[in-house]
Amino acid sequence: MSEGAVATYIPELAKADPDWFGLSLVTTGGEIYEVGDSRQSFTIQSISKPFVYGLALEDNTRAEVLTKLGVEPTGDAFNAISLEAGTGRPRNPMINAGAIAAAGMVEGKTPIAQFQRILRTLSLYAGRELSLDESVYRSESETGHRNRAIGHMLRNFNILTVPPEPIADVYFKQCSISVNCRDLGLMAATLANGGINPVTMKQAIRGEYVESVLSVMASCGMYDYAGEWLYRIGMPAKSGVAGGIIAVLPGQLGIGIFSPRLDPRGNSVRGIKICDALSRDLNLHLFNTPHTSLSVIRVRFSGAEVNSSRRRTVQEARVLREAGGSIQVYQLQGNLVFSTAEVLVRDVLRNVRNMDYLILDLKRILGINESACGLFHELLLKLSAQRKLMIFTGVKRHPGLRRYMKAKLASSFDREFSTFEEYDAALEWCENQLLNTKFPEVAAEREREATPESYELFQGLLPEEIQLVTNRLQRRSFRAGEVLIQTGAEAREVFFLSNGFAVATVTLADGGQKRLGVFSPGMSFGEIALLDGAPRSACVLADTDVACDILTLEDFENLGATHPRIKIVLLKNMALGLARLLRKANREMSLFY
Amino acid sequence: MSEGAVATYIPELAKADPDWFGLSLVTTGGEIYEVGDSRQSFTIQSISKPFVYGLALEDNTRAEVLTKLGVEPTGDAFNAISLEAGTGRPRNPMINAGAIAAAGMVEGKTPIAQFQRILRTLSLYAGRELSLDESVYRSESETGHRNRAIGHMLRNFNILTVPPEPIADVYFKQCSISVNCRDLGLMAATLANGGINPVTMKQAIRGEYVESVLSVMASCGMYDYAGEWLYRIGMPAKSGVAGGIIAVLPGQLGIGIFSPRLDPRGNSVRGIKICDALSRDLNLHLFNTPHTSLSVIRVRFSGAEVNSSRRRTVQEARVLREAGGSIQVYQLQGNLVFSTAEVLVRDVLRNVRNMDYLILDLKRILGINESACGLFHELLLKLSAQRKLMIFTGVKRHPGLRRYMKAKLASSFDREFSTFEEYDAALEWCENQLLNTKFPEVAAEREREATPESYELFQGLLPEEIQLVTNRLQRRSFRAGEVLIQTGAEAREVFFLSNGFAVATVTLADGGQKRLGVFSPGMSFGEIALLDGAPRSACVLADTDVACDILTLEDFENLGATHPRIKIVLLKNMALGLARLLRKANREMSLFY
Repeated sequence: MSEGAVATYIPELAKADPDWFGLSLVTTGGEIYEVGDSRQSFTIQSISKPFVYGLALEDNTRAEVLTKLGVEPTGDAFNAISLEAGTGRPRNPMINAGAIAAAGMVEGKTPIAQFQRILRTLSLYAGRELSLDESVYRSESETGHRNRAIGHMLRNFNILTVPPEPIADVYFKQCSISVNCRDLGLMAATLANGGINPVTMKQAIRGEYVESVLSVMASCGMYDYAGEWLYRIGMPAKSGVAGGIIAVLPGQLGIGIFSPRLDPRGNSVRGIKICDALSRDLNLHLFNTPHTSLSVIRVRFSGAEVNSSRRRTVQEARVLREAGGSIQVYQLQGNLVFSTAEVLVRDVLRNVRNMDYLILDLKRILGINESACGLFHELLLKLSAQRKLMIFTGVKRHPGLRRYMKAKLASSFDREFSTFEEYDAALEWCENQLLNTKFPEVAAEREREATPESYELFQGLLPEEIQLVTNRLQRRSFRAGEVLIQTGAEAREVFFLSNGFAVATVTLADGGQKRLGVFSPGMSFGEIALLDGAPRSACVLADTDVACDILTLEDFENLGATHPRIKIVLLKNMALGLARLLRKANREMSLFY
Repeated sequence: MSEGAVATYIPELAKADPDWFGLSLVTTGGEIYEVGDSRQSFTIQSISKPFVYGLALEDNTRAEVLTKLGVEPTGDAFNAISLEAGTGRPRNPMINAGAIAAAGMVEGKTPIAQFQRILRTLSLYAGRELSLDESVYRSESETGHRNRAIGHMLRNFNILTVPPEPIADVYFKQCSISVNCRDLGLMAATLANGGINPVTMKQAIRGEYVESVLSVMASCGMYDYAGEWLYRIGMPAKSGVAGGIIAVLPGQLGIGIFSPRLDPRGNSVRGIKICDALSRDLNLHLFNTPHTSLSVIRVRFSGAEVNSSRRRTVQEARVLREAGGSIQVYQLQGNLVFSTAEVLVRDVLRNVRNMDYLILDLKRILGINESACGLFHELLLKLSAQRKLMIFTGVKRHPGLRRYMKAKLASSFDREFSTFEEYDAALEWCENQLLNTKFPEVAAEREREATPESYELFQGLLPEEIQLVTNRLQRRSFRAGEVLIQTGAEAREVFFLSNGFAVATVTLADGGQKRLGVFSPGMSFGEIALLDGAPRSACVLADTDVACDILTLEDFENLGATHPRIKIVLLKNMALGLARLLRKANREMSLFY
């Protein structure tokens, strides 16, 4: 392919090898793909314009920028002066007049400081120190009469309010910054990634300005080819006369291309063809967007289907199975934006009638924008008015939600904004609330001191058998926080909880503690290790002050010899308890996978 | 707000109440939000243009359409003639000249048939029968001299090759179709939803043309305000002189607005202000896109972390724990497009070294586009060259993947494209392959006939105790497919599998069968029901021809009385087996939640 010609209007550019070709594709995940002459240096030229426009937005109010610089495509060629009749406002920042106006709006006490700021920022986009190509700069400067003329026209209309030639000089320099294809791919990917370079993770432009930069690229980036470009390729893009092109697929990837042969519009011939092919082959068109809102709900279940890890008595389990539908848990995933939050809110409102507790688990949410916060706030008010409770879990990574709610809820924030770090703790809390308010007699049971007659493992024993075992039990008390069972310890005893609550935990790889379950009076723990003699697999702590009856392994074995029926009943109860837990685990598992 | 004026150039439009205001927002999930005069009828006017352009694309080749009709914004006003110098090609389909050219390209033997096709299609977009407003049509027709002039100019340049006045008449009619705000919202949402009306689920335009329609709306839809519109509001849009506007956020939602006061450009004044506010408040700007690619992997695990539901012997379980890392399972979610598939492929390649089996579960995938199919195909070739196996599960809803692979793999399709409907079956198959090839001695065990000495529940019994139990066992044989245990039946016996394989299943709500697990020789099943006397909770079938030893509940109870030690050992083994299953379930569960 040898269509098109290398730019010659700046003598230095004419030295490029017309056959150079480089391509890089960089994902917002930070993966870099390169082919061809992707490390060949060339000057950035007009591709600097969107980035400098971003700086103008950062360094001025939006109103100031819009007053001096339009955003309408012109349908004219790249070097057209295109000033608006009357005001002298350049039609957009992608034509030279607009780019020079934008350069004038970059912060800096002197033109040198302004250029330094531009160079520093472009380096942040590229993720490495960029530098000026002195010989191209001299060439640009020596031949840049038209751009100096534009500068004076801008001064004439007070778009520039300082001497125009030093600003034209800043513009010559920004066009002469040396880059390669890989740099362009990274710069494009930084725009795709909300302004953060996906490799260095450094911010090159504040996220709020990215949409404006991409908008002018989409409508004006390819000069009088912008409409066809958007139609065919469907990505905001910008070309430069040295043969570079960047294209951005927001949220997904950036592309950098280098091929010096240009068409009469000043766009790289091969660059356009490659982008066209890439867009078609990889389905990159901006408006070829799959409908993803529905997948925001990862899983939804009720407190009747899934229980917290807290060990429940048979009574409690039965009540939760019957009335747990009033607790609804949504585990969410992906990004919460208006359309995904709307899907969630709709679903909640469809199910709201029998709901008293709503748990929204954000653990797998990547981001929440303000409109989603707004919908949550409205939902919270709606539920609160009906005396229904809304609880967020996994909010630690989303400080924006807390800030938003604090601002909106003001004095009622502490009362209305309920959060738990773990969904399991929230579910346990809701279950307890439900039991306490609707089934006080069942709930009270849990607070009551248990006696051997009511120990779960003893069910089915005759009174004299209970007496026999009781004689071998040793009473022990623990203060809240004390360790009952240590992970890794030898298993020598089974614990019957008489009073208070105990909690089993394991230490996670990251050093954190995960609660495996809470035991109430009447339950036992530590019995599995008695069967296989394996060391303790979890730690058990006193959650409150606790009183336990303890049966040693030795007594347990002896009982088997002298009173086998007792041992048979205990083993049968153990197996039944395990079977119940297994059935529950399998039922819950089928919801999640 | 009373800026702007009702259009008067068509006398009938001047009758509109300038204070009418309606808004509708329709999500791609099919939810409709409306406020104000959203059911007030008005004529669609220029908002018909993108839809008729879609018809022109459907009814002609793309090359034909592009030859007669450009896609470049003009920067000119809505009624500018804007024909390209030389060719006479209208610059884009959103100006009147382009719209009349598009109307001429709609299929139909007569202009009446052409209009019928337009009306039928717009009705599909709106989800109800639309009709013509006869009085506006007469008014348009009586005053449409400029548009007739355009028609003759198009005929002059052979853009129209038929008498132009009947085509101008089709155009007058399409502009006079009566709609309300709700219709517009649904029409916009249909474009947002890939051409399918999200309420009726009927297709109004083939998905492949939607991106083209949205592209011309984005670059040319708001006339000479298109650049600022994209900059501020960031959604492809189209306005009409009766005061309507549609705006589309691809994949997410459509907006319909009605307010008759127009600005000098012919756009609804209030419509633009409301869209601006909506876009800002709901963060709807197209280029304000969160980075979502990473969430494509819902969960990843290895065959060492999670096993199939097949019950494994202690030996098998140990081997899988040690070597199961060579099986990698990815459960995917959301949409597979280039950038999400890329994230997956990268992750697979990072983990490929010790991988022999790769299972990709698509059960929760909403859609796969061609570029994702392409990446999967390349990955498959890469793995296949290394003699690694790639298996897809949950592919039933994605016939496109099968078609793509069939076309690409051609004669090797049957050999290379492996699928299972359920991931669990694929995992079981991989485990068996792994055992058969790497641990033949462990695998062989499974095929061997078990004797009472090797029954898992009998481990720890003395030889004479085994003899005692064995005397009570009854031998029974079953043909493959025969029922051993029926769901709901009374539990009267425990089964010891001596030869062959048995499978436990439950019937799902939808009538399907779910496999709970496969048993091999030496294992027992049906024992839980002996403990609590509950009816059978699952069905067990002979997976192959099967031989079992059966112990009745009566004999089991009697053994407890005469030989308590036997019963104790059996119960202990039962409890240990359950504890192992529970620990496995809890471990796996923590991966999924």
